Amino acid sequence: MRLKDLRSPADLKDMSYEELNDLATEIREELVTTVAQRGGHLASNLGVVELTLALHRVFDMPRDQIVFDVGHQSYVHKLLTGRYALFHTLRTFGGLSGFPKRAESEYDVFETGHSSTAISAALGLARARDYQGRDHAVVAVVGDGALTGGMCYEALNDAGNAKTKLIVILNDNEMSIAPNVGALSRHLTDLRVSKGWTSTKKKVKHRLRRIPVIGKPLYRLVHWMKDSVKSMFVDEGFFSALGFHYFGPIDGHDLRSMEHTLRLAREFDGPAVIHVLTRKGYGYDKAEEKPEMFHGTPPFYVETGGLRQASALPSFGKIMARELADMAREDSRIVTITAAMPSGTGLSAFQKEFPDRMLDVGIAEEHAVTMAAGLAAGGMKPYFAVYATFFQRGYDQMIHDVCMQRLPVTFLLDRAGLVGEDGATHHGVYDLASLLPVPNMTVLAPRDLNELKAMVRWTQRCDGPCAIRYGRKSVDLGEKYPYEGFIFGKWDLMEDGVDCALLAVGSMVELALETRSLLERKGVRAAVVNCSTVKPMDEDMLRRLSGRPMVTMEEHVLIGGFGSAVSAFCVGEELPGPVLSFGIHDTFVQHGRRDQLLKYLGLEPRQMAGRILSVLKDRKAEKHER
Amino acid sequence: MRLKDLRSPADLKDMSYEELNDLATEIREELVTTVAQRGGHLASNLGVVELTLALHRVFDMPRDQIVFDVGHQSYVHKLLTGRYALFHTLRTFGGLSGFPKRAESEYDVFETGHSSTAISAALGLARARDYQGRDHAVVAVVGDGALTGGMCYEALNDAGNAKTKLIVILNDNEMSIAPNVGALSRHLTDLRVSKGWTSTKKKVKHRLRRIPVIGKPLYRLVHWMKDSVKSMFVDEGFFSALGFHYFGPIDGHDLRSMEHTLRLAREFDGPAVIHVLTRKGYGYDKAEEKPEMFHGTPPFYVETGGLRQASALPSFGKIMARELADMAREDSRIVTITAAMPSGTGLSAFQKEFPDRMLDVGIAEEHAVTMAAGLAAGGMKPYFAVYATFFQRGYDQMIHDVCMQRLPVTFLLDRAGLVGEDGATHHGVYDLASLLPVPNMTVLAPRDLNELKAMVRWTQRCDGPCAIRYGRKSVDLGEKYPYEGFIFGKWDLMEDGVDCALLAVGSMVELALETRSLLERKGVRAAVVNCSTVKPMDEDMLRRLSGRPMVTMEEHVLIGGFGSAVSAFCVGEELPGPVLSFGIHDTFVQHGRRDQLLKYLGLEPRQMAGRILSVLKDRKAEKHER
Repeated sequence: MRLKDLRSPADLKDMSYEELNDLATEIREELVTTVAQRGGHLASNLGVVELTLALHRVFDMPRDQIVFDVGHQSYVHKLLTGRYALFHTLRTFGGLSGFPKRAESEYDVFETGHSSTAISAALGLARARDYQGRDHAVVAVVGDGALTGGMCYEALNDAGNAKTKLIVILNDNEMSIAPNVGALSRHLTDLRVSKGWTSTKKKVKHRLRRIPVIGKPLYRLVHWMKDSVKSMFVDEGFFSALGFHYFGPIDGHDLRSMEHTLRLAREFDGPAVIHVLTRKGYGYDKAEEKPEMFHGTPPFYVETGGLRQASALPSFGKIMARELADMAREDSRIVTITAAMPSGTGLSAFQKEFPDRMLDVGIAEEHAVTMAAGLAAGGMKPYFAVYATFFQRGYDQMIHDVCMQRLPVTFLLDRAGLVGEDGATHHGVYDLASLLPVPNMTVLAPRDLNELKAMVRWTQRCDGPCAIRYGRKSVDLGEKYPYEGFIFGKWDLMEDGVDCALLAVGSMVELALETRSLLERKGVRAAVVNCSTVKPMDEDMLRRLSGRPMVTMEEHVLIGGFGSAVSAFCVGEELPGPVLSFGIHDTFVQHGRRDQLLKYLGLEPRQMAGRILSVLKDRKAEKHER
Repeated sequence: MRLKDLRSPADLKDMSYEELNDLATEIREELVTTVAQRGGHLASNLGVVELTLALHRVFDMPRDQIVFDVGHQSYVHKLLTGRYALFHTLRTFGGLSGFPKRAESEYDVFETGHSSTAISAALGLARARDYQGRDHAVVAVVGDGALTGGMCYEALNDAGNAKTKLIVILNDNEMSIAPNVGALSRHLTDLRVSKGWTSTKKKVKHRLRRIPVIGKPLYRLVHWMKDSVKSMFVDEGFFSALGFHYFGPIDGHDLRSMEHTLRLAREFDGPAVIHVLTRKGYGYDKAEEKPEMFHGTPPFYVETGGLRQASALPSFGKIMARELADMAREDSRIVTITAAMPSGTGLSAFQKEFPDRMLDVGIAEEHAVTMAAGLAAGGMKPYFAVYATFFQRGYDQMIHDVCMQRLPVTFLLDRAGLVGEDGATHHGVYDLASLLPVPNMTVLAPRDLNELKAMVRWTQRCDGPCAIRYGRKSVDLGEKYPYEGFIFGKWDLMEDGVDCALLAVGSMVELALETRSLLERKGVRAAVVNCSTVKPMDEDMLRRLSGRPMVTMEEHVLIGGFGSAVSAFCVGEELPGPVLSFGIHDTFVQHGRRDQLLKYLGLEPRQMAGRILSVLKDRKAEKHER
């Protein structure tokens, strides 16, 4: 049976292993072809083809429930649950999401996107089942990377105590996005070794040595253990201590043995963890070779694995990392931190030059923020580079451990604003609202790469907490607007104009300049102000500008954002407030290309110019009436 | 040597064990006497007298560094580090804080207040030490309750991998605030048992049976293990898996053996955990008997343990729990959740009637929020009762797991506003700023107990996320303002008045009414509006009121709060914005009685009335000039 003939996942149950193997091959082809077109998460999905097939064969979905941690590995699940025909729309505006969505299918019981939530969600579902006297299975599929997040542990601790019937599939591919870190990862390796997974020393050696940095010492450690006190150290300690029954490890590409173990676990009356070993990128050689690159990838050529559109400009993250490395050569206090994303944040460039001064703490943003605070209290100058959306995890720690003690920690918030195809779970549009109310916090947003460089350099002189937000799209305004340097607390009047003033934050400066051009054609002269320091605001400039109609622009929710801060200031000073505030209204924004989303939100320069013209016209008419 | 003669903790090193015993007795007397006067955390401090003495004898503070998790157990440390003379000012306005404060002493290297941060902070300090080529010790003192928080695990995982030299003292008193929950707690019991800590079966039985609910099954489990597969299950599994060397368990009231172990750990080159067993309340019989009551206590009588001032009104939490229990009798979907605070939140009353429908997840707010989302996705109606300040921990989960899926989870945010003597780390003054920008969220704040009851009842009909914020101080306005029921989205004009309109949220309604009386005496007629639905705002009412000067009042930071939302609305609608917004300016508020803090912030009715009069006068003068 081929994918197009599959009416429901129940059809899988009657298929032979030979047929299933053919289906797995077809699924992999479909994954590679579609992601090569649309971009998306490839390596992780290639790794879970057999696991997903086994899950749908052993369990009865949607009666039985499955929660995918992070959710980017749910493509195979989508293909098997009635979404094959729409799969070509993956991650496009109005098309299928790259993550589980309840609106898409009854087979998606819980939406995910951020890491380490699945066990908590599954425990909730399992408890709901028990309260209601039902008896279906609840399964959480969690990567070993996600297991570095504290939420997983909180959930295991709770579930293991409650003895609720719940199955956790530990999908162990020895990496989250980058090769995995943390002591537990080592423990998992111990489990693999002790359980006879690797039959010969050579194999162990090979596997372990592939793990960068810690590979060799780890091999020596394991070698030593095998010959001496292995039995004391290597056991199911971690999961047993948390009250879980441990099954495994099993080969995640062997359907038969997986189904056997899943059936055992299904009958087990209590919380169980099944340790499944998979290979990221399995079945597509380019992705197997470079799983980190094919974790989340833009469109690429299937044959070569090369990207279809190489970006002309370096990313914000790359520029940031280069500048920090420059500074670190002279300033020994500088140390950088990532939560399992050295490459995505750009920090890997810094790491290359200063391997000991780049700390990868695992998917553990809470810990990252407080550990940074500890570093700062100890006299260092830490920089935590993190996607704005994941920074939400460190909200309490930012307030309580960094700002309250006024420690010089710098947060480098990448992917602030609309991220595009990853959609609602990944847009970074709450950061200003979370940062601005917190005392002692400085908030900056660069107009372009040149300004980011200058801001990063400036942070060296900042003796308190600071956050810099920048978007996914690289911008260089330098050709038309040569960058003249960053002055803390001062906004830059990039263009003057008497008819109105466009106050723009970060990514919106580029769009404000475009809006200005469109207005100019209609005879309206608009000033454009780069509001680079969002907190504290440039109050003098605001007072000066308030004589003309002001318009604020931000790639952020309107409530609690920049525009609302400007409004509150104006009300407090009895100045006329902005006549228009552009930003995101009170709704979650779905996935699509950034330009499509901007249009959907009315943030295209053409749309903004239109609204400004209409407001200015109304005001003129009003004045006239008076 | 007595406390008053102690010049520095170094003096402790020359004292004999006999002298130290006398000193311990004096410290306990001082703790009981002062906390009986000032209120504060008693039981935890009584439990760590010997531990703190041992730490200061073995280590050289402040060269060696110590971080107290949560920090409420730092009183003994304060007494030993030059703050004995000021100890009577504990938790008073301008006096000593109840938590570590860097401004107070060089012996306080890192400030704490929220749980589970100490290992992260200590790891940061230890890494700073290593980067700078120094070699002092860094010690984190963590309770077994705090260990249920995921941050601890993230930090252990990172530290165990890095092999940084770091000592974690696990202060195991078998409870956080309430008796401890979670599978790890069970594991700790296993450690105690396996290590021969309890010499006879009888003792084990006694100890375990004292743990409510899980005590008996736990005893049976341990009994079974002792006789069968103990050696497989009971080991240092958890800490070893995370790369820590385990010492213990040791008697936390035996100075000699503690010092011996601390010295061993000090010389150990890597991350080590020392498992210390203490008794909460040790040395004061009332506190030993009721450690939960004497965890954080108001002033009490030393002889009887009875409270000095019994509150006349029930707490908001109590009323909430009663109402929920009433509802739960008919609505089987209702289930409640606490993060280790059944008593503080009032939920213990609900638990009494519905023990299976009150889930205590440990100090794990992140997990609590997502688990609640799972329950809701499974068809239940979950209520998570939590202090507003601790809710900050679940910020990302609130956005990502609850609101994005529009799940009917209700957050009951207790201690919103100024909490008084606990100070900066505990004020709940960022909740509105974190909730208002999030789509799908409903935010309510009751004027008093009667309204909370009505709101809780209303949530039954709410099919999306909802948060209700209420303060520490109980209020009942019913006598003068009989409660007339809650209408969602409609504000209540409690008093009318043409000269200005006071728009108040929650706790500020009472103060607005007082302000109104003061204004009345000056001939100013003020309307008072109870803005019970904070999101969505009552826009019709706002439009109606905007004809007169409006004043907003909230016990919350001004940036991103209610007043700024009203300002943004008015600017958007081209209505005149509030002439005054009362709330907390951009600063962290220290500790003190609520009335002192209100005065400090200019939020006393007398102060507010004064400012309103002056603004109204100015406006009149301005009008006249025109």
